[in-house]
Amino acid sequence: MSAPRPGGRSARVVASVHRAVVDLISRGDLDITISHVAHEAGVNPTSIYRRWGTRDQLVLDATAAHLRRNSPTPDTGSLRGDLVDWVVEIEHNLVTPEGRALLRTLATAEDHPGHARDVLHHFGDVTTVLDRAQQRGEVPPTPEQVLDRVLAPLTLRTLLGLAVPDGYGRHLVEELLASVPQQC
Amino acid sequence: MSAPRPGGRSARVVASVHRAVVDLISRGDLDITISHVAHEAGVNPTSIYRRWGTRDQLVLDATAAHLRRNSPTPDTGSLRGDLVDWVVEIEHNLVTPEGRALLRTLATAEDHPGHARDVLHHFGDVTTVLDRAQQRGEVPPTPEQVLDRVLAPLTLRTLLGLAVPDGYGRHLVEELLASVPQQC
Repeated sequence: MSAPRPGGRSARVVASVHRAVVDLISRGDLDITISHVAHEAGVNPTSIYRRWGTRDQLVLDATAAHLRRNSPTPDTGSLRGDLVDWVVEIEHNLVTPEGRALLRTLATAEDHPGHARDVLHHFGDVTTVLDRAQQRGEVPPTPEQVLDRVLAPLTLRTLLGLAVPDGYGRHLVEELLASVPQQC
Repeated sequence: MSAPRPGGRSARVVASVHRAVVDLISRGDLDITISHVAHEAGVNPTSIYRRWGTRDQLVLDATAAHLRRNSPTPDTGSLRGDLVDWVVEIEHNLVTPEGRALLRTLATAEDHPGHARDVLHHFGDVTTVLDRAQQRGEVPPTPEQVLDRVLAPLTLRTLLGLAVPDGYGRHLVEELLASVPQQC
């Protein structure tokens, strides 16, 4: 899905559909359907099918967007700065009751994205962060490494209700970058 | 929960309760209750409450035991050998439809274990593997590291339906051990 122009009609539809998914899930409706969401958002179910295809892809997109609060893709000028900005926002939103409910709903999905790059694209497009670092001559981690080393510990801990210490996301990014050898 | 004596009455109850949980979840019952499980296993609900306390603790215990197929705690004589044995079994069982269903059910739990050590205790008691390595003078990773670096990537990939390449669990163990400095 390409990003809709901010402020346009299409952006308003995306925002209201995302909001409807988050609201429904927060109220405990883990078995949401596209027709529930369409009703809640006041849009035509056809518009949802056309843009997201399936309920599970919609849940992934709305969940990931919520965890990033639709923040713009970080662009601090360095890979470390971008990844830290990115993870701090996700970490902050994961531990809310809403974040937990979203993750739990995600875990019940059957229709999956298939590739790490596709998953990360939903999460505030961190793939752009990695591509940009490469263009600057930095050696970025792979999308698989970002998924395994940063997103996976945060999400498993959240799902299992384990402690996520303050600054843990930043620590995971630092550990990952330390293990990716940089060119001199 | 201490391990019941193999072959005893208590061991038979544990096995049949675990089996009932796995069967119910495999048949699509993600909202299992203790009374469902008791009925399916042919045991008194009171015995389940007494041993496991809550539905969520029972699901965690049955899930983790299934992912290890109740194998004994590995004891190969080396930390590397033990952790590889341990993860290969889990990896193998996670990717089955049963394994996925179990993980999904786990993700809907509300009553959580609280500490990484408590989680790992259920997973074939890998904490014993770590303690034994320390007694031999090896420098084991912490339970938190095993959770974040080995279990988390495997479970997140399984939950999201992403590829888990052959030998991936072993690779994760090798990477983790390479990052834990050993004494000389």
